[in-house]
Amino acid sequence: MSDHPTTPVLDRVHTPDDMKTMSDAELHQLADELRAETISAVSETGGHLGAGLGVVELTVALHAVFDAPKDKIIWDVSHQCYPHKILTGRRDRIRTLRTEGGLSGFTKRSESPYDPFGAAHSSTSISAALGFAVARDLGGQGGDAIAVIGDGAMSAGMAYEAMNNAGHLGKRLIVILNDNEMSIAPPTGAMSSYLSRLYAGAPFQEFKAAAKGAVSLLPEPFREGAKRAKDIFKHMTVGGTLFEELGFSYLGPIDGHDMDQLLAVLRTVKARADEPILIHAITKKGKGYGPAEAATDKGHATAKFDVITGKQKKTPSNAPSYTSVFAEALIAQAADDPKIVAVTAAMPDGTGLNRFMDRFASRCFDVGIAEQHAVTFSAGMAAGGLRPFCALYSTFLQRGYDQVVHDVAIQRLPVRFAIDRAGLVGADGATHAGSYDVAYLANLPGFVVMAAADEAELVRMVATAAAYDDGPIAFRFPRGEGVGVEMPENPAPLEIGKGRMIREGAQVAILSFGTRLQEVMQACETLAAKGITPTVADARFAKPLDRDLILKLATTHEALICVEEGAVGGFGSHVAQLLADEGVFDHGLKFRSMVLPDIFIDQASPKAMYDVAGLNAGDITAKVLEVLGVAQIGAQSA
Amino acid sequence: MSDHPTTPVLDRVHTPDDMKTMSDAELHQLADELRAETISAVSETGGHLGAGLGVVELTVALHAVFDAPKDKIIWDVSHQCYPHKILTGRRDRIRTLRTEGGLSGFTKRSESPYDPFGAAHSSTSISAALGFAVARDLGGQGGDAIAVIGDGAMSAGMAYEAMNNAGHLGKRLIVILNDNEMSIAPPTGAMSSYLSRLYAGAPFQEFKAAAKGAVSLLPEPFREGAKRAKDIFKHMTVGGTLFEELGFSYLGPIDGHDMDQLLAVLRTVKARADEPILIHAITKKGKGYGPAEAATDKGHATAKFDVITGKQKKTPSNAPSYTSVFAEALIAQAADDPKIVAVTAAMPDGTGLNRFMDRFASRCFDVGIAEQHAVTFSAGMAAGGLRPFCALYSTFLQRGYDQVVHDVAIQRLPVRFAIDRAGLVGADGATHAGSYDVAYLANLPGFVVMAAADEAELVRMVATAAAYDDGPIAFRFPRGEGVGVEMPENPAPLEIGKGRMIREGAQVAILSFGTRLQEVMQACETLAAKGITPTVADARFAKPLDRDLILKLATTHEALICVEEGAVGGFGSHVAQLLADEGVFDHGLKFRSMVLPDIFIDQASPKAMYDVAGLNAGDITAKVLEVLGVAQIGAQSA
Repeated sequence: MSDHPTTPVLDRVHTPDDMKTMSDAELHQLADELRAETISAVSETGGHLGAGLGVVELTVALHAVFDAPKDKIIWDVSHQCYPHKILTGRRDRIRTLRTEGGLSGFTKRSESPYDPFGAAHSSTSISAALGFAVARDLGGQGGDAIAVIGDGAMSAGMAYEAMNNAGHLGKRLIVILNDNEMSIAPPTGAMSSYLSRLYAGAPFQEFKAAAKGAVSLLPEPFREGAKRAKDIFKHMTVGGTLFEELGFSYLGPIDGHDMDQLLAVLRTVKARADEPILIHAITKKGKGYGPAEAATDKGHATAKFDVITGKQKKTPSNAPSYTSVFAEALIAQAADDPKIVAVTAAMPDGTGLNRFMDRFASRCFDVGIAEQHAVTFSAGMAAGGLRPFCALYSTFLQRGYDQVVHDVAIQRLPVRFAIDRAGLVGADGATHAGSYDVAYLANLPGFVVMAAADEAELVRMVATAAAYDDGPIAFRFPRGEGVGVEMPENPAPLEIGKGRMIREGAQVAILSFGTRLQEVMQACETLAAKGITPTVADARFAKPLDRDLILKLATTHEALICVEEGAVGGFGSHVAQLLADEGVFDHGLKFRSMVLPDIFIDQASPKAMYDVAGLNAGDITAKVLEVLGVAQIGAQSA
Repeated sequence: MSDHPTTPVLDRVHTPDDMKTMSDAELHQLADELRAETISAVSETGGHLGAGLGVVELTVALHAVFDAPKDKIIWDVSHQCYPHKILTGRRDRIRTLRTEGGLSGFTKRSESPYDPFGAAHSSTSISAALGFAVARDLGGQGGDAIAVIGDGAMSAGMAYEAMNNAGHLGKRLIVILNDNEMSIAPPTGAMSSYLSRLYAGAPFQEFKAAAKGAVSLLPEPFREGAKRAKDIFKHMTVGGTLFEELGFSYLGPIDGHDMDQLLAVLRTVKARADEPILIHAITKKGKGYGPAEAATDKGHATAKFDVITGKQKKTPSNAPSYTSVFAEALIAQAADDPKIVAVTAAMPDGTGLNRFMDRFASRCFDVGIAEQHAVTFSAGMAAGGLRPFCALYSTFLQRGYDQVVHDVAIQRLPVRFAIDRAGLVGADGATHAGSYDVAYLANLPGFVVMAAADEAELVRMVATAAAYDDGPIAFRFPRGEGVGVEMPENPAPLEIGKGRMIREGAQVAILSFGTRLQEVMQACETLAAKGITPTVADARFAKPLDRDLILKLATTHEALICVEEGAVGGFGSHVAQLLADEGVFDHGLKFRSMVLPDIFIDQASPKAMYDVAGLNAGDITAKVLEVLGVAQIGAQSA
């Protein structure tokens, strides 16, 4: 504990109840200590630092004024929840954040009653809070519903849908817009400009006095009872017409790091609100920690670091990341083809498109957190004659699924989907796993679906997608480093629907789709010691399937095992459908399809998650032995 | 042709080019004739009437002023496109609308170059138009990009995402807000109220003069060149702050049935716009046809009808619709359980929830076209202790897919999904087919997925869902009438994960999931004549699978055939995975999985579409014969 900060006030807080008797001065002190504790914890664990530091005062003020868990505090995205976790009974485990068996880096219902609604994807909080508000009014669980949502998250249509409905229903509901002018990347979009104008038009100093004045001016209890919140707060408000048109009372902007102002405003809102209210708080991501404030990404996500210097303790990499390989490959294609454009949804760094943007600014579009629009906007550009690459994480592409079906697939438009973070992703856990994309894309008529077995394959698939104009095409690749293979210099497009033989063997054929190929090859080494030499092929395509290759493997081996980094319904299911249609099962084939299991797998290292999934080399070895019936004794004696 | 209207001006229009030389007076006349022709055509075909009648003048004005197909006119949802089709070379086929081999009821790229971007789902037009605008500016296809979007469609987050991005990019882009205060149902939501206030605050009469004045006042070419559109239109504008904050110039409201005003405004916009512009046009759904104007739904969707009386020629029904059976069953459950609430996304009639709303107004929520919010709002209510039924069409649930994964499944919240229009739907064609829900739900851990074999089963599944609190549960049912079976009086919940034997036979087992069961039984009659007596079972559950039933069928029959109304990756794929895991294929099983084929199936009657899909009784018979190898000679001689 020698490096841990001294935190006498924080040490008294075991649950938020312990804050209810604290003076405002103590709450000030508590916020400072909470910030120090957060920095100290994340320096040991790595994780999302900047967002949490930006809401330290807000977290303290919310828990001081409201009564969680009866009141439902819902953190949007929730990577800013570390201070909240420290205050709500989880301080003793805060240094296990994002590790196997440790605390989640996000709010999680199964972890604590103080997490009424988990998150990790953005912009869900207002919908959820409205659900709680309605439940309360219909005899469900009581208490206030409070959504804390960032300005970046406000670019998502879902947040607008929720505000539109909340404004219509008119129920008491509190939305705190945590405006740090920075989600992961600097925000884009007209809403972002609008918020900046609100802020520019209203310096805190003037409003601060008004807010304080409002509290003292309003007698308790308020004389007119159920008077509209809009009237009550009118003189505290200096803008926000847009929100008011959507049926919210707008209150702000306020200084989200000024505890006095936060406490005053929240107390007033708690006492008076009878309609939807939006409190616009201006905060600084990374606030109070120099190295984070100074960083380009404001300490958004960090490795373990030295608290004094802020220097991150990154492990050296052995190979380039898939993300950077994708980005460089796309840049190389775009240099030769002016019709190539790129689209990302608020993830220029995460998808590597920041490099593309540096090189081809006018051909790169960061649409904000807006996956639905990203997909159809790409479809529109494809219809207009361009060659769009839409780069999203697998898990976020789920947000644009209907657009993929309705706007891209049905119209057979040549949108290229670069699907990053396919498969299990590690510390971000189940919410970020890219488990379903193969299943939800490969059954769409006319779609081409590829998975890269290594980074050289990824380069070939970028070339394949660039050259393919006949319809939609997707290629998936995992989070993390490549395997260090030699890279092709002038990658030629792959033949659509053709896999490749990796090695010829006998008895059993293993057909791999994606980067499990490395594990398959490792399994083969173990199997060689037992005299088993599997045939190995890389399918490359889940759609169209390489019919000839699959039927050859199936008819010349006793067993065929498919391996993929996805859930049932994907690659292996398509292979099974082909084999059934062709009557291959009629006379017997030891067919197995190794897929992600039917559970949501909690955070751990990707390797440990694939152990849980049963998709590592040892599992593949065991499956081969089991299918061939050779190792039952060995397995039992183990 | 005796009943067809007399249309001398319309007869001269073969393409929009023929309108370019017409005087404004002729365009007036053209609009009147186009309205008469639309009414006449839809009276013969049935279809979406009200929406088209509401945009007759707008359609004429757009094609008179802009130059399609170089300019891209994108109709949102596009069920209002019949007048557009009549003007763009498809008049000779307009009386084949929505029939097999006929014109689509929606815009469709493959049908005409005048349909630059097809639609059918709502709120995609601004994203697509922005894509065209960017493509134009990056050297792709030229011309203006014009999105025509209804007020109902503006409740969808996707439209907001697109406006947010368009406002940010600042490119020339024209959005026409067709505000008829009515999408399918009366609109809900704060945006709708906002639009009403804009309209209330600005009577047409005053604006009309201003608009006309603006055109004459502004010299041509405009003196200051690239002056901001916002300044140019400032004096034509009486509201619209919300849109202006999002980076659009707002122009309106204007009378969408006043040809003079429309022509003046569009000509001015065409000549002057250099930024995103939103033109707010007020129209009447069903305009100019008494019976439509008088109808509650403003003639939204109609059967064939008599033009004089407006009386619809509906074929009498033999059984209640699945939709109404669902609604009555839910009402019965809700009468006993005050925690049951219902959510729909702008489809109260289509989902039958209008009846629920009549009975339990405070427990029914129409959130507008906002499926993402509908799902997470339901999740919030479930977390708050209620029992939400989220009723959506299968194809529209795709809009909320990420929310189903992230907010419902991962948190294992007991949201009940009532999935209407599962499978092929008929005249609405490929865009409305519910082909993918089983695949995209059944691989989510903890989900229960059911399909009703008939309307009595649907009632049992509603009871099952009402009683199930352990996690998410979904039940799917088709469009159209039930089969006329006797209904259970006090339906007991089904045992989760248990199917039912329908009849015991030999040699081949047919395992049905959903309403193909009727076709299976019909196939059995044909097969009986050939001495084949299949075993038939109704799986009821795609998840969890009835393991015992499936293994029993597989091990006691030579062949096992799965039949479902969905794409590969769904029920049959889960069965195949089970059989593979259990080693059932090792020693041979004639396994087949009959699924929707790998094509988007065009509109026809549902029966004809299932013929194309190969999922009718004859196809099932043929599959059984083929698998058993008994009918090869008969098949060859046919």
